[in-house]
Amino acid sequence: MPALRGVVIEVTTSFDRMWADLEPVGRDPRTGGYRRYAWTRTDHDLREWFAAECLARGLDLVEDRAGNQWGWWGDPDTTPGVVIGSHLDSVPDGGAFDGPLGVVTAFATVDALRAGGVEPDVPLGVVNFVDEEGARFGIACAGSRIITGALEADRARSLTDADGVSMAQAWERAGRDPVTLGRDDEAVRRVGRFVELHVEQGKALALAPDGGEDLADPARAVAIGTDIWPHGRWRIDIPGEANHAGTTRIPDRRDAMIGLATVIQSARSYAVALGSVATVGKVDVIPGGVNAIPSHVTAWLDARGRTEHVVHATVDAVSSEASRLGATTTSESWTPTTTFDADLVGTLRAVLPDAPLLGTGAGHDAGILATHGVPSAMLFVRNPTGVSHSPAELARVDDCHHGVTALTAVVTELCTGKDPESMSDVR
Amino acid sequence: MPALRGVVIEVTTSFDRMWADLEPVGRDPRTGGYRRYAWTRTDHDLREWFAAECLARGLDLVEDRAGNQWGWWGDPDTTPGVVIGSHLDSVPDGGAFDGPLGVVTAFATVDALRAGGVEPDVPLGVVNFVDEEGARFGIACAGSRIITGALEADRARSLTDADGVSMAQAWERAGRDPVTLGRDDEAVRRVGRFVELHVEQGKALALAPDGGEDLADPARAVAIGTDIWPHGRWRIDIPGEANHAGTTRIPDRRDAMIGLATVIQSARSYAVALGSVATVGKVDVIPGGVNAIPSHVTAWLDARGRTEHVVHATVDAVSSEASRLGATTTSESWTPTTTFDADLVGTLRAVLPDAPLLGTGAGHDAGILATHGVPSAMLFVRNPTGVSHSPAELARVDDCHHGVTALTAVVTELCTGKDPESMSDVR
Repeated sequence: MPALRGVVIEVTTSFDRMWADLEPVGRDPRTGGYRRYAWTRTDHDLREWFAAECLARGLDLVEDRAGNQWGWWGDPDTTPGVVIGSHLDSVPDGGAFDGPLGVVTAFATVDALRAGGVEPDVPLGVVNFVDEEGARFGIACAGSRIITGALEADRARSLTDADGVSMAQAWERAGRDPVTLGRDDEAVRRVGRFVELHVEQGKALALAPDGGEDLADPARAVAIGTDIWPHGRWRIDIPGEANHAGTTRIPDRRDAMIGLATVIQSARSYAVALGSVATVGKVDVIPGGVNAIPSHVTAWLDARGRTEHVVHATVDAVSSEASRLGATTTSESWTPTTTFDADLVGTLRAVLPDAPLLGTGAGHDAGILATHGVPSAMLFVRNPTGVSHSPAELARVDDCHHGVTALTAVVTELCTGKDPESMSDVR
Repeated sequence: MPALRGVVIEVTTSFDRMWADLEPVGRDPRTGGYRRYAWTRTDHDLREWFAAECLARGLDLVEDRAGNQWGWWGDPDTTPGVVIGSHLDSVPDGGAFDGPLGVVTAFATVDALRAGGVEPDVPLGVVNFVDEEGARFGIACAGSRIITGALEADRARSLTDADGVSMAQAWERAGRDPVTLGRDDEAVRRVGRFVELHVEQGKALALAPDGGEDLADPARAVAIGTDIWPHGRWRIDIPGEANHAGTTRIPDRRDAMIGLATVIQSARSYAVALGSVATVGKVDVIPGGVNAIPSHVTAWLDARGRTEHVVHATVDAVSSEASRLGATTTSESWTPTTTFDADLVGTLRAVLPDAPLLGTGAGHDAGILATHGVPSAMLFVRNPTGVSHSPAELARVDDCHHGVTALTAVVTELCTGKDPESMSDVR
C-alpha cells in the first residue's frame, strides 16, 4: 500500500523536524545540557514554538490560570477530551527528552491520525505543562498543582528563585498578571483522560528479562506506567555562626558546613538501610566566602521509595540526626503513592499487549492529575543509558517513532473506539 | 589648653563623620552585612568617597596599575613615604570594620597631624587597596599582589567571578583598560614603610591576662602585629555522574555530594589532630537541582596554622582522602609565614610601649608588601565580640578613637622623628 507507506514517512518526518527545531533551544554549549526554566526567555521561546505548532494544525490554543498551554482539536467544553502531551522545561543541565518527547510525540500523533484519516469522536488535546521540574521555584509539577489546587495560588506567587525573584514577579516580567494565577476547575474538567508519554528514567526496558542489554526488541520499546512511587522534598536549615576562617579557633566555631556533611551522610546511610533513595542535590551556603565560616547552610533532601512507610522512615531518621545539630526540617512537597487509573491502564494493555508494565520513582503531571480525579496513565520510551536529568539521557530515534506509533494506537482507541489494528499501516 | 581640647573634638568628629558616610554603602538590608565586591557599583561608590576625602585634604590622588588608590601628602617620587590605610571591600555579608577602619583612621590621622601643626619631613600616603578579600575573583590581596608581581597580570585578568565575568571584563565594564593592569614597581618603590591598622579578628585584646573580659583597659585598645600565619586556599574538584534522584538505584550512583561530606569532615578532623585551622566555606554544586544527583562538586579549602609544616600536613591529608574519591586538589594561593619588619615593629613598640604584641591567622596587604621588600607592620584595634567577616564584627567608638591616637603617634615618629609625647594633647 504505497500511499500509506508515504504517510508513515510523513509522520516520522514531522517528528524529526519538530525534534530538530527544539534541539538548540536552551542548550548550554559548555555542558551540552538544557537549562529551560519556567518564565525565562528560553521558556518563552518554547511556548512560542508550542503555539506555532498548534496554529499549524488548526488546534485551538487555550491557556489556563497556571499558564499551561492546551491545543484542542474539538471543543472540550461540550465533552471532556483525551489529552496527550507533557512539558518543555528542564532541570539544570537536563537532557533533551524528559518532557519534550511527550509533547513532540503528541503533535506527531495528531499528524498520524490525520494522515490516517481518523476523525476523533471526542475532543483531543495536546498539553504543555509549565514548570514541571520546579527547577526555578523549587516545586515540581507547579503547573498541574496550581490548576488542581494542590498548590495554593498565594503560596505559588510567593515562591522565589535563586535570585530572590518571586513567581509573581516572574509573571509580571513575562507580561502576565499574577492575580489571575490560581486553581482552574474549568481547565481540569476539560480533561476526560490523560496519557503522558515520557522517556524512561531507568534501564528496565533496555535490559532483557535475562539481565543482558537488548535495544533491538521492538516489544520493549514502550512500557505502560502503572504507578508513581511516593516522593517528597524537604528543606533542612542548618545554623552556624559567621566568623573568620583564619582567626577563629576550632573550639570557638559553629560551622554550619559540618552539619551539612552529617546530613549528606545520614541521607545516604538511611536510604541504604531502609531500601529507599535519598539525595541532597542542592545546597545554599551563607555567606559563601572562601575565608568565611558558614553561618547558615540550607540543604534540600529528595526522598522516594516503594512505600510511603520507607520514605517517611528515611526522612524522619535524617531529620532526627539534623535536629541534634540544631537544624530544622521543613516539608516542601509530598506526593503519596499514585496508582494510575485501572480502566485506562486496562485499555492501554489491550491496545499494547506486548508492552511491559513499569512503576517509576519520578513524579509527573500525570500523577498530579491522577490524584485530582482525572483518569490518567503513562507510556515510557526505552532509554539505553538509563540516565535521566543529564545530557546523557537518551531515546533512540527508532524508539521515539515507536512511541508515536504506540500513542497513535492508544489515542485512536480512546477517541474513536476503533480497533487500532485497522490503523496498523499508519504505525 | 582649650584650643587643643577643641582639636581633639574636631579629630574625633572627623572620624565619626567619615564612619557615618560609609555605614550605608553596600550594606544588605536583609542580613545587615556588607557586600562590597571589587569593581562593582558599590566599589565605585567607595572609590569615589576615597577620592573625595583625598581632594578635601589636598592629597594628590594617584592610582597604580592594579587600581589601588593612593592619596599623597608630599612627593613620594623624591623620597619614599610612610603609608597608612587598608582596604574598603568586604567578604560576602562582612562587617563594617575589616578594611574601612584602617582607611578612616588614616584620614583621621592626617587631620590630627594637621590639627596638631605637624608637618611631615617625609611624604605621607593614605592607601585604599583594591579587592583585598578576593570575594569576587577568589584571590585575596589581589591589589597588592598585582603591583608586587605576586599575581601575574595574565592570571589576574583571566580570573572569573561566580557569573563567569573575568577581571579583564570587569575592568572594561568599569571603563578601564585591562591591558594596563600589571606589576607596578614605581608604585611599590614609593612606599618607604607601611603601617596597616585593622580591627582585631579574635578576642585576645578583649580578654585580660587572667582570662576575663576587659573592654575598659585603654592599654589593651590597640595591639602591634608581629607576624602573619602561613595560609593558603585550595580548590578540590569532586567528580560524579548526573542522574535522576528518584529513578537511580543507590548502587548505580556516583554522587559527588557524598565526596563533599568526606572533604568537609576530613578538613575538620585533620585540623583538630594537627592543631591547624581548616575551613570549607564555599561550594559549587553542578547541576544543583533538588531532584538531580550532582555530577560535580567543587569545594574550596582554606587552611592556616602557626607553622608552614602543620598547614601543609593538613592539606596533604585532606587531599589524600579526596583523591581516593577521584577528586583533584589544586593550590589557588599560598602565603608563607610573614614576619613583620623588625626595625619598624621596634619603633612601634617604642611609641606604644603598653600595646600587646599579636600574631594573626588572617592575610593582609601589609603581609604582601612585607614579603616584597617593603618594611611593613600592623596595628590591631580591640574587637569585643572577637567575630570577624560577619555583621557581628565590632570595634567600639572609643577604641576606634584610640586607634587614631595610636596611628597618629606612630606616624608622627615615622614622619618627623619627633617624640610623640609632645603631641599628647592632640591624642
